[in-house]
Amino acid sequence: MLTNVRSDRVKSVRSLSRRSVRERTGRFVVDGPQGVREAIRYAAARVDDLYVTSAALERHDEIVQAALEAEIRVHETDDAVLEAMSDTESPQGLLAVVAAEAATLDDVLAGSPRLLVLLSHVRDPGNAGTVIRGADAFGADAVLVTEGSVDVLAPKVVRSTVGSIFHLPVVTGLDVEATLGALASHGIRTFAADGVGDTLLPDVDVSRPHAWVMGNEAWGLPVEVRDRCDEVVRVPISERVESLNLAMAATVCLAASSGATRRV
Amino acid sequence: MLTNVRSDRVKSVRSLSRRSVRERTGRFVVDGPQGVREAIRYAAARVDDLYVTSAALERHDEIVQAALEAEIRVHETDDAVLEAMSDTESPQGLLAVVAAEAATLDDVLAGSPRLLVLLSHVRDPGNAGTVIRGADAFGADAVLVTEGSVDVLAPKVVRSTVGSIFHLPVVTGLDVEATLGALASHGIRTFAADGVGDTLLPDVDVSRPHAWVMGNEAWGLPVEVRDRCDEVVRVPISERVESLNLAMAATVCLAASSGATRRV
Repeated sequence: MLTNVRSDRVKSVRSLSRRSVRERTGRFVVDGPQGVREAIRYAAARVDDLYVTSAALERHDEIVQAALEAEIRVHETDDAVLEAMSDTESPQGLLAVVAAEAATLDDVLAGSPRLLVLLSHVRDPGNAGTVIRGADAFGADAVLVTEGSVDVLAPKVVRSTVGSIFHLPVVTGLDVEATLGALASHGIRTFAADGVGDTLLPDVDVSRPHAWVMGNEAWGLPVEVRDRCDEVVRVPISERVESLNLAMAATVCLAASSGATRRV
Repeated sequence: MLTNVRSDRVKSVRSLSRRSVRERTGRFVVDGPQGVREAIRYAAARVDDLYVTSAALERHDEIVQAALEAEIRVHETDDAVLEAMSDTESPQGLLAVVAAEAATLDDVLAGSPRLLVLLSHVRDPGNAGTVIRGADAFGADAVLVTEGSVDVLAPKVVRSTVGSIFHLPVVTGLDVEATLGALASHGIRTFAADGVGDTLLPDVDVSRPHAWVMGNEAWGLPVEVRDRCDEVVRVPISERVESLNLAMAATVCLAASSGATRRV
């Protein structure tokens, strides 16, 4: 059992809460039973190590068994070690170190995607995570993220995807203009979601391949990005409400695309 | 200008971050320009005091003018005083103390509501605030909150409604069984939103008055509550995703009710 909170191993795992360390090592952390379970189910080959407290070992036996069957190294730790490894105060007893996957836009486009989300300069970890979870729930083929956005492998983002980060490709570091060009050349229509849009969500044709383009939480999408999209789409809301937040708007648009709210 | 961070006034405002103080005094705090602006627009008679830093006084002149026209007491403060009054580290220069409104279920029902949300044992401030914002955006007539839920006048909830808390009645402290009974006797159909539901969201009849019933973040709705609702409704999502979070599910259901995603 690992009991030394000052060990190099603990320091090394804990350092993955820093973006620079994640980028240098190509590793990130997922904690909590749901995220760890999905990592083992969908990305076992990328899981380096699983750290489990004694209590979690008992409580989440099926997760630990799945890890052992996948030949993942499982380490029992005391509570203090797991807490020291995690950036959250209540890491729920399970934490895995996972190798990042280098998904590319070309890979995604080669799969003839029907539904995509492009996040442009999204900064809030909770928003990014919720959009990834929503994209997964509503059957998107991938999430595309521009340069200048939050790191999707940050612990808070990974945590708020509740495992969805392992279900679909998330391509990062994209140039927004080049990405819009690539989508257009592959016949994927682009819908900028923005409160200034002329097209109302119920009028959008979601039957053909399309990508929702979502802007920054505070300033939305720059006009030059909106202008390059095929449509600028507004979710119809009450006049007294200034806007939906990013995660809500993305969720509603994705739900509409998937047929979760209407037969398509 | 108020400059003494240790004054009784500062302590008194700061103490409103505690539920017991809010309940005893019938007052709560709203901070940030959007929330304060909506408080003055929609509930000026309930705003006791407005505190503004010098920078915000210049930047948000139209809000301050509206407050003065409504005969609200406006106090200039230095940055330290405003920070000491607020429970957030970046209160954006504006903070108002507002009297709570005692909305009742009877008042709401007397208005022949067409769309309601009932939150049962919802605990997370961000979720509660986002649902109130979504209810407002999608034209709900009121939000109903059961006993055992987060206090909707807590600073984090108020902040995440971004002013919506002043746009529609929020009735709190309700007994879930009694509320479901009252809704039924007023001809309001009740839809429990739950992943176990037999009815899919696209099949729900949203043309008649109805209430969405949302359960706790972790354990959902107790079976006896689900059984008392007219329908148990599931948002259709990918099989690999265990659930939507509460705020996402509520947003999608409310959007469907409002016709934001389909013509109704």
